[in-house]
Amino acid sequence: MIAALAGGVGAARFLRGLVRVVAPEDVTVIVNTGDDDEFHGLDVCPDLDTVTYTLAGVENREAGWGLADETFACTDALGRYGLPTWFRLGDRDLATHLFRSARRRAGASLSEVTAEIVAAWGLRTTILPMTDQPVATRLTVAGGVELHLQEWFVRDRAEPQVVDVHFEGARTAWPAPGVLESISNAHTVLVCPSNPIISIGPILAVPGVREALRDRRDRVVAVSPIIAGRTVKGPADRMMADLGMEASCVGVARAYADYCCALVIDDQDAERAAEVESAGMRVIVTDTLMRDARIAAALARHTLAAVA
Amino acid sequence: MIAALAGGVGAARFLRGLVRVVAPEDVTVIVNTGDDDEFHGLDVCPDLDTVTYTLAGVENREAGWGLADETFACTDALGRYGLPTWFRLGDRDLATHLFRSARRRAGASLSEVTAEIVAAWGLRTTILPMTDQPVATRLTVAGGVELHLQEWFVRDRAEPQVVDVHFEGARTAWPAPGVLESISNAHTVLVCPSNPIISIGPILAVPGVREALRDRRDRVVAVSPIIAGRTVKGPADRMMADLGMEASCVGVARAYADYCCALVIDDQDAERAAEVESAGMRVIVTDTLMRDARIAAALARHTLAAVA
Repeated sequence: MIAALAGGVGAARFLRGLVRVVAPEDVTVIVNTGDDDEFHGLDVCPDLDTVTYTLAGVENREAGWGLADETFACTDALGRYGLPTWFRLGDRDLATHLFRSARRRAGASLSEVTAEIVAAWGLRTTILPMTDQPVATRLTVAGGVELHLQEWFVRDRAEPQVVDVHFEGARTAWPAPGVLESISNAHTVLVCPSNPIISIGPILAVPGVREALRDRRDRVVAVSPIIAGRTVKGPADRMMADLGMEASCVGVARAYADYCCALVIDDQDAERAAEVESAGMRVIVTDTLMRDARIAAALARHTLAAVA
Repeated sequence: MIAALAGGVGAARFLRGLVRVVAPEDVTVIVNTGDDDEFHGLDVCPDLDTVTYTLAGVENREAGWGLADETFACTDALGRYGLPTWFRLGDRDLATHLFRSARRRAGASLSEVTAEIVAAWGLRTTILPMTDQPVATRLTVAGGVELHLQEWFVRDRAEPQVVDVHFEGARTAWPAPGVLESISNAHTVLVCPSNPIISIGPILAVPGVREALRDRRDRVVAVSPIIAGRTVKGPADRMMADLGMEASCVGVARAYADYCCALVIDDQDAERAAEVESAGMRVIVTDTLMRDARIAAALARHTLAAVA
């Protein structure tokens, strides 16, 4: 059995490769929900949906969120009522949010409705929210303004400099059913190539998760989301630098070393392998740029082999 | 000032004519909300929206509900999650329901959010729900099964024979702000050509409305929705017959006579004018088949003249 900690696009692409090399039903994905937000009364869970849609093969590859071949008639029409339309919810994607929101108002937990959505897409992989309680990633940006992640990332295009990050609600949250068990019982725990601060960070902030990972440190392996000092997609590199971390695979190694025994870094970073080892991690050097699912599958195979 | 009691399509077409012959801002429309229902957690108000969309000139003329040139990507996608899709919510129409539902959850009354929607469409006519409390039109059909109106009308295509109608919640509801005042202060009160049982009936069932109309009986004039024993659209004729009323302008006259002094009937029903008068109403005979807005305007002018 394999457990995987995941954020959005990078994780989803990695997981699509993973389920080519292991049985999908042997994988439990623990997904960041700090990005979750409410828009127009609907519960929107970007990372859960990105992982689900990508594993179902229906994701919008260009946008990095939502469904392929979407229309946006509803979001466009919301503007008439003076509602903000910067968060573009596709018309078909809306069905997911309507279903989730109605089920939750009817008393279902986020875990339960996530399992229903995953089943509706015909997936055999288990996809868990990190917690069923609300946790909101909030950023303090230059000037002292505090923003919800989506305001910063989508509305403000990740432009304001980040000076602090916190996970509202995390201290009083607890892991969703199956989260700790999947870590404890896993042969291998994977930390997908996701933003260390705002994708993996919130999962670690849920009480008990970091401790469960530390207990299994010799079975935990991560893939660096930073290649040659840059992210493939998303703001991890700039955010790491803004917060005083080194935006490199070495910076990732220093952040992960306490609960993770090995780090997979890209061929382009081969010269930094010794520094990763100095940070206390074994190092695996390979092609981590997932240009297609075949490369993602090879990366998954190398990553699993690191603790085999 | 003019007050108008309204259901859906027939009323909306009549009102579009009315605002051609009087200033739109001099008209207050009191709309049936017994058809309102919740779909996928959204508050759907068919008659309020039909009146609003029609006065805004954006209604779907063929369907008789919703917006013109709609797409149904979201409703189609809901089927994946096992949700019923027989109530077809258009993608742009969904924005109205999302806005209304979010505003109501935030504490706005149905009157308040209706005023906001009407303003968003640039209308100067006042559109009021009959009440801010939930009232649900429920039908008992052959076999004793009880259905919500939309289940019977949309899902079951108005096929099951109706044996009883009641308006759940009506006894403990009260008229929305402005409803009784608009009736009391109106120079003329119009009963639009709508289903007497399930469009006008719920409005009359709100405590105080029928009494307010009776007090102004000599200023209240109705337009028969039945022409030559048939409705132009909708199930009023069959429903009247099922419930033991005569499906004709005479049947309408008998139902309305206690609070209404005059009835406008169609040229095709001229021979029944004496029977309408025997039911206790003055009668106006004219063309009531609203093939276009010009004919609707002429009908509105004739109707207003009945109590001028």
